[in-house]
Amino acid sequence: MTSKSINVAVIPGDGIGPEVIAEAVKVLRAATAAVDTELSLTEYKLGAEHWLATGETLSAETLEQLRSHDAILFGAVGAAPGDTRIPSGLIEREMLLKLRFSLDHYVNLRPSKLYPGVPSPLANPGAIDFVVVREGTEGPYVGNGGALRTGTPHEIATEVSVNTAHGVERLVRDGFRRANERSRKHLTLVHKHNVLVHAGHLWKRTVEAVAAEYPEVTHDYLHVDAAMIFLVTDPSRFDVIVTDNLFGDIITDLAAAVTGGIGLAASGNINMDHTAPSMFEPVHGSAPDIAGQQKADPTAAILSAALLLQHLGLAGQAARIEQAVEHDVATRAGATRTTAEIGDAIAAAVS
Amino acid sequence: MTSKSINVAVIPGDGIGPEVIAEAVKVLRAATAAVDTELSLTEYKLGAEHWLATGETLSAETLEQLRSHDAILFGAVGAAPGDTRIPSGLIEREMLLKLRFSLDHYVNLRPSKLYPGVPSPLANPGAIDFVVVREGTEGPYVGNGGALRTGTPHEIATEVSVNTAHGVERLVRDGFRRANERSRKHLTLVHKHNVLVHAGHLWKRTVEAVAAEYPEVTHDYLHVDAAMIFLVTDPSRFDVIVTDNLFGDIITDLAAAVTGGIGLAASGNINMDHTAPSMFEPVHGSAPDIAGQQKADPTAAILSAALLLQHLGLAGQAARIEQAVEHDVATRAGATRTTAEIGDAIAAAVS
Ligand SMILES: CC(C)[C@H](C(=O)O)[C@@H](O)C(=O)O
Ligand SMILES: CC(C)[C@H](C(=O)O)[C@@H](O)C(=O)O
Repeated sequence: MTSKSINVAVIPGDGIGPEVIAEAVKVLRAATAAVDTELSLTEYKLGAEHWLATGETLSAETLEQLRSHDAILFGAVGAAPGDTRIPSGLIEREMLLKLRFSLDHYVNLRPSKLYPGVPSPLANPGAIDFVVVREGTEGPYVGNGGALRTGTPHEIATEVSVNTAHGVERLVRDGFRRANERSRKHLTLVHKHNVLVHAGHLWKRTVEAVAAEYPEVTHDYLHVDAAMIFLVTDPSRFDVIVTDNLFGDIITDLAAAVTGGIGLAASGNINMDHTAPSMFEPVHGSAPDIAGQQKADPTAAILSAALLLQHLGLAGQAARIEQAVEHDVATRAGATRTTAEIGDAIAAAVS
Repeated sequence: MTSKSINVAVIPGDGIGPEVIAEAVKVLRAATAAVDTELSLTEYKLGAEHWLATGETLSAETLEQLRSHDAILFGAVGAAPGDTRIPSGLIEREMLLKLRFSLDHYVNLRPSKLYPGVPSPLANPGAIDFVVVREGTEGPYVGNGGALRTGTPHEIATEVSVNTAHGVERLVRDGFRRANERSRKHLTLVHKHNVLVHAGHLWKRTVEAVAAEYPEVTHDYLHVDAAMIFLVTDPSRFDVIVTDNLFGDIITDLAAAVTGGIGLAASGNINMDHTAPSMFEPVHGSAPDIAGQQKADPTAAILSAALLLQHLGLAGQAARIEQAVEHDVATRAGATRTTAEIGDAIAAAVS
């Protein structure tokens, strides 16, 4: 048993964020207590509600305070679609993406696993167990666009995808490292290099170069459109997918859907150099339509807490949470439980 | 019965292209003969094989000759993945995309329909019948990228998505026009405006503006990642999707997969102003692995020929082809027919 202490910042956010994070915290407490690890939690009120109350998305002071933690547990942010008081996308960009970029979360890690007993929308899903290593700090997400003659018939709007050798290489290297630790040892690069030539060739050349350092890892390449087809016709072909920020966003929601829905999909925004805290969050959004009703599935948040423990060196407890989740989801058919009841069951199993 | 003549350029291309186009031509001949329409066909040898033989992708003269036709029927292009004699993506960009851009094919029309009897990879597909109106002449496909310090640790590669009011408005207007002619009269814009702010807002504002001219058409918006989820969990929610060039590429391959595969997915690259010939092609690629074996499904090419006839004002014959296909695919279970046998059956049904 380890005996240490971990110091986690908690950002519940908006909508169902606070509900699912309450359960993830419950499970974190149970999992750390079981190995005599002290857990200290500091809550940060950020998100759409906070912006409405204060006009603040993420201040320099808050960002500095967040840096002092070992990791961040994040719920979900975003206003209701009909809420016109909040400029669309503002919280996502000025808070969520600002955290990912400022804290250099270059590995956006999104495991996709079809747990036994979980229904998939696919008729014959097969055994699905892959991980998407999505680049998190560049690509089309850099905010490097502009508009000219806005609102006129001559408007031009551009978006620039920026890709650097530094950014692509560290991501690809992480993908190979993970593939090398898995039993199938296979890596697939997904891009669209027949059209996005410059970015695509940087990715492709980088994969070829890093592949030479991992002789046991096999690799292949798929255009993003072909990857779509395989994700619904043969998802078990995938082991590790490396891809850019936007393709990764698209692929991981589809991957979540085919493995039983975003209620189960966890993610880590990871700074593998540990120069800043990494952040763990469910793939789903704030779902304002079901907020406050104890209807949300906290499993994605709980699995995100497991990724957090793994990142902080508590791999054994991370595995225990995953096993508890695997057991819990296998027995769900037909049952309707509240958000808290699901959290209670999983927390009890890891205590 | 009409009595006219149509003058079609045929580009069989590479791999399975010539095989599937032979069947589409068979069906075109039958469908036009049945209404006393003279069909004149001119074959153009273009593609990877042609490039290997001549070093030419698409010359200015060939492009001019192509302009003299009423429409173009296109098979598929692209070398085998392992063929290192051909620079990757060259034929796709310098021939296929060059045609789309030069002939101003701004509406890339891709219907998605699950025909009765066709197996879907989805367990409960429901009734799928929507059409994707993909922008075809701008967005991330403009080839407006570059690279600096290529091959060094300081490489930067960029890709610029260019979106104009002109380009977006004509596409969105086409989408609303099509939605207005359909029974459900619903349009969904798919983009990612919370991240791609400038391009996204041009698209969103344009949809709002054009919507005012179509009071009977309802419309909504989905981020591309959310659209992925609905395409596998509730594809029948879609009626008309309007989207940009890259999102359209991604969405339509997934849509093809859930409606029974790219063997059935047709497309039109349409210049709605008729200032240049439109081009009709199956969504699938050249599939070099099965080329020359009479294994390819010619249905996508045949349905593309139906779109061609519809575009040229022969809507009745287009509908007859679609009915013949619908009948043919309903009886396929268990049967193995050659490419030519499938073409023969459908041609016989429209004669
Ligand atoms: C909210 C949004 C900015 C975000 C993204 O696009 O990365 C989300 O979709 C995700 O995948 O975490
Ligand atoms: C071959 C390629 C350039 C093309 C595209 O990306 O548009 C293809 O995938 C398609 O969808 O027609």
